[in-house]
Amino acid sequence: MTQTQAEDTEPSRKPTGATGMRLVVPLQGVVQGRGGLILGTLIPCTLFYFLQLYLKRHRSRPKTSSNPPSPSTSSSNLTALPRTSSRSNLLNQPVRVSNRALIVAKPNDSPYYVGLDKVLEDPYDRIENPNGVVQLGLSENRLCFDLIEKWMSENLMGSTIGDFSINGIAPYQRQHGLMELKVAMASFMSQVMGRAVSFDPTKIVLTTGATPAIEILCFCLADPGNAFLIPTPYYPGFDRDIRWRTGVELVPVHCRSTDNFILSVTALDQAYTQAKKRGLKIRGLLLCNPSNPVGNMLPRDTLIDILDFAQHKNIHIISDEIYAGSVYGADEKFVSIAEVLEAEEFDKSMVHIIYGLSKDLSLPGFRVGLIYSYNESVLAASKKLCRFSCISAPTQRLLIPMLSDAKFIQEYMETNRRRIYEMYHSFVESFKDLGIRCAESSAGFYCWADMSKLIPSYGEKGELELWDKLLNIAKINVTPGSACHCIEPGWFRCCFTCLTQEDIPVVMERISRVVEACKSRS
Amino acid sequence: MTQTQAEDTEPSRKPTGATGMRLVVPLQGVVQGRGGLILGTLIPCTLFYFLQLYLKRHRSRPKTSSNPPSPSTSSSNLTALPRTSSRSNLLNQPVRVSNRALIVAKPNDSPYYVGLDKVLEDPYDRIENPNGVVQLGLSENRLCFDLIEKWMSENLMGSTIGDFSINGIAPYQRQHGLMELKVAMASFMSQVMGRAVSFDPTKIVLTTGATPAIEILCFCLADPGNAFLIPTPYYPGFDRDIRWRTGVELVPVHCRSTDNFILSVTALDQAYTQAKKRGLKIRGLLLCNPSNPVGNMLPRDTLIDILDFAQHKNIHIISDEIYAGSVYGADEKFVSIAEVLEAEEFDKSMVHIIYGLSKDLSLPGFRVGLIYSYNESVLAASKKLCRFSCISAPTQRLLIPMLSDAKFIQEYMETNRRRIYEMYHSFVESFKDLGIRCAESSAGFYCWADMSKLIPSYGEKGELELWDKLLNIAKINVTPGSACHCIEPGWFRCCFTCLTQEDIPVVMERISRVVEACKSRS
Repeated sequence: MTQTQAEDTEPSRKPTGATGMRLVVPLQGVVQGRGGLILGTLIPCTLFYFLQLYLKRHRSRPKTSSNPPSPSTSSSNLTALPRTSSRSNLLNQPVRVSNRALIVAKPNDSPYYVGLDKVLEDPYDRIENPNGVVQLGLSENRLCFDLIEKWMSENLMGSTIGDFSINGIAPYQRQHGLMELKVAMASFMSQVMGRAVSFDPTKIVLTTGATPAIEILCFCLADPGNAFLIPTPYYPGFDRDIRWRTGVELVPVHCRSTDNFILSVTALDQAYTQAKKRGLKIRGLLLCNPSNPVGNMLPRDTLIDILDFAQHKNIHIISDEIYAGSVYGADEKFVSIAEVLEAEEFDKSMVHIIYGLSKDLSLPGFRVGLIYSYNESVLAASKKLCRFSCISAPTQRLLIPMLSDAKFIQEYMETNRRRIYEMYHSFVESFKDLGIRCAESSAGFYCWADMSKLIPSYGEKGELELWDKLLNIAKINVTPGSACHCIEPGWFRCCFTCLTQEDIPVVMERISRVVEACKSRS
Repeated sequence: MTQTQAEDTEPSRKPTGATGMRLVVPLQGVVQGRGGLILGTLIPCTLFYFLQLYLKRHRSRPKTSSNPPSPSTSSSNLTALPRTSSRSNLLNQPVRVSNRALIVAKPNDSPYYVGLDKVLEDPYDRIENPNGVVQLGLSENRLCFDLIEKWMSENLMGSTIGDFSINGIAPYQRQHGLMELKVAMASFMSQVMGRAVSFDPTKIVLTTGATPAIEILCFCLADPGNAFLIPTPYYPGFDRDIRWRTGVELVPVHCRSTDNFILSVTALDQAYTQAKKRGLKIRGLLLCNPSNPVGNMLPRDTLIDILDFAQHKNIHIISDEIYAGSVYGADEKFVSIAEVLEAEEFDKSMVHIIYGLSKDLSLPGFRVGLIYSYNESVLAASKKLCRFSCISAPTQRLLIPMLSDAKFIQEYMETNRRRIYEMYHSFVESFKDLGIRCAESSAGFYCWADMSKLIPSYGEKGELELWDKLLNIAKINVTPGSACHCIEPGWFRCCFTCLTQEDIPVVMERISRVVEACKSRS
């Protein structure tokens, strides 16, 4: 798809080359005709100087591979804008906004976002819209809304919204969050991690969700052009969270199905060395543990090895542990990097944790995330950068009693884990019946399904063809591995926690039709 | 104060110069001794090349005047870190965070933030802490909390917090705000502006306060290194909002007391021309209307002239109208730039409005701001950048019925204006009794007081000495004009809407002691 559009614009590049030639030829005449040595020295020097100047002036643009060059710099650069030019009407307007805004504004080209948009247009509902698109692309958990609702109606029954003290919600509050909520969050985090570790509320910076938390951390740990290592497959949103505004690069560390997509130090070292050779300054490693999209977890020993590696290279670790409480594997226990730091001798100031309530408490609409850092400079800078991402006071006040109710949280966690497991089990078994196997996983809201046998050709193109069929024929929105930068084609993330058990046969029936069509064709 | 610290580090700069000399002298020997022409050409060329390379590599650092150079670049640069080195212990740590984080993390050096911190340590309370620091430095309005509280208890009495539909608050919502709240905000804006203009909810992007709204707009309208014109005196927070993360520069347009600090096109043109001469690319003009800190408003004719100027130069206008509903002048009417755009022929796509509920509805704790733009590309990019600044769903749901209650809003607006006026009148009259005159103003939460006769020396140093006396002896936190980049020394912003009428004598008695001391000394 992208290929075709790039080819469409190829011919228009030629005139630019021709203009370049016309510029050079008269100069040759001048040099050969008169002036000899002096002009022969001066002209290359001058040209070289202008080249330097040109490079210098065009340096500040983001360097992500998918970003088109600035449309305003020169008309010849327009030819390098394959995706935007054919899919948006932005370029029909006079270009008077910033180059970076044009990059952000261009229509979604990742299948992850295209799929999400598709569901918004025509969302499936068992009763109201049984032919709509089923959402398996959004990592949201609706399995325990009843418990949250029940707690709210029971515990806030007497207290009307008007009971909020006006002085507690109306005035300016500390930008990085109320201390009462930090205390409640620290306790909640410890509880979801089985009390294996405790958290210090003064090391917490509260933000409007994990998204700004990650952006702020990357801003604080790396300067523009610096890079972070990131194991693949990874959550597609990281490309926006990290690249859009911080100017930080992401260097993939490819994990493979033979290791059940668990990160190895060998792969890490290889990616690090290659990036250094390319002249990149690696400032850190972004872990997502439990992993999104695979749903596996890093064993303690691997965590220790990774910490050893990072500290040896003097790079930071950001550990995104937002699914820490959504572990459903019966025998598996989540190990936080904080737990390892408590037991082993490492430099804590190089480690930072991301957490939030969007996953483990099923409250993404509340927009509550946090940075947990052992580094004083990071804490100081993050607290100030929260001016751009403050949680509203009424929301903070509402959450404090809920998170502080340890009995409720315990019951919630147990029920939630059981319900996720039941959905996971049903889903994986149904997939097995269709001949689709899933990676081993024990946490999160999704399974990571191997449909490589169903793709028409082994590669990203084939994978996207299957994704397209699932979305537009079967009306199932899943996330293809390529959107997660997975190196092996044919893997798909399927989130099942927005469904009910009754929806599973509908989903499987739709998928089976695509499976049958693929099998009969091959 | 700053002066002294800068002088402290002066001697240590000399060795750097000496090292430079030692490098150059041997080269002179080489050139004169052998090689003549060739080396004489090659060496300067090579040096020039490395200079270019150096400039190129060091270009991406923010260029604000108060930012210290990166401590990690070279040890000799450490000598240029006067403020941080003596006031923080950040440099005692190994520098392993980003250079930009170090800039953000360093202790507050603007008197605006120093004063705010001081109040947090020891806040005045008439009953609980009568000797504490009185807050006249924060632009917050507590005069009508009773009305908000009454509305909440009356209108949400029946509905408990548990009545919020769980499906309306728990799941992911549209990042740029609920359409119901956009409709309510559009109506509210129109109402506070006396129905002189109407707003289209589809042109609204909701953010967590006006702070991220301004940052997002600057990101969208200018690339790093581009600049915005900004009339002085201006709100001190803009330096952080705009410079910290967008890399956009601010070019002051100095307004003067002889014009009651009203922006003129002459001053605008002069600043624009000078900035262009300096090689800056001016992308827009940031207006604050009604003005913070002066409290005056731009007349319709001036607005038209400014629009003419901006459109002629092809630059954007951001109009921050967050105080639009806090106009207390009896005969004065606020004119929104939107109203001018409706009546006159201008290119609307170059105009963008900032608004929010922190001032006119006294709810800064709710963190609700917005971008109103006529530009499709800006809307498209802003909506996506809201992923970093989403308002929580419970807060949005809570505000929809309040803003939609037009009768309540009308009563609130009238009472609020009357109460602000009463405080303003008392304050200005009391100041007059002390021999302090204020600029003419008719909107906002503050008066802009001329204390130039009280400053020990005419300049920023003298102004800061008076500010220091007011803060540390009289225990009154006001904002000095220099923190607002005012070009004339001796002006101070005094916010009075956090006080009650009973507090005014206390404040005036404290200030009078400083006034007497100043008078007796001179």
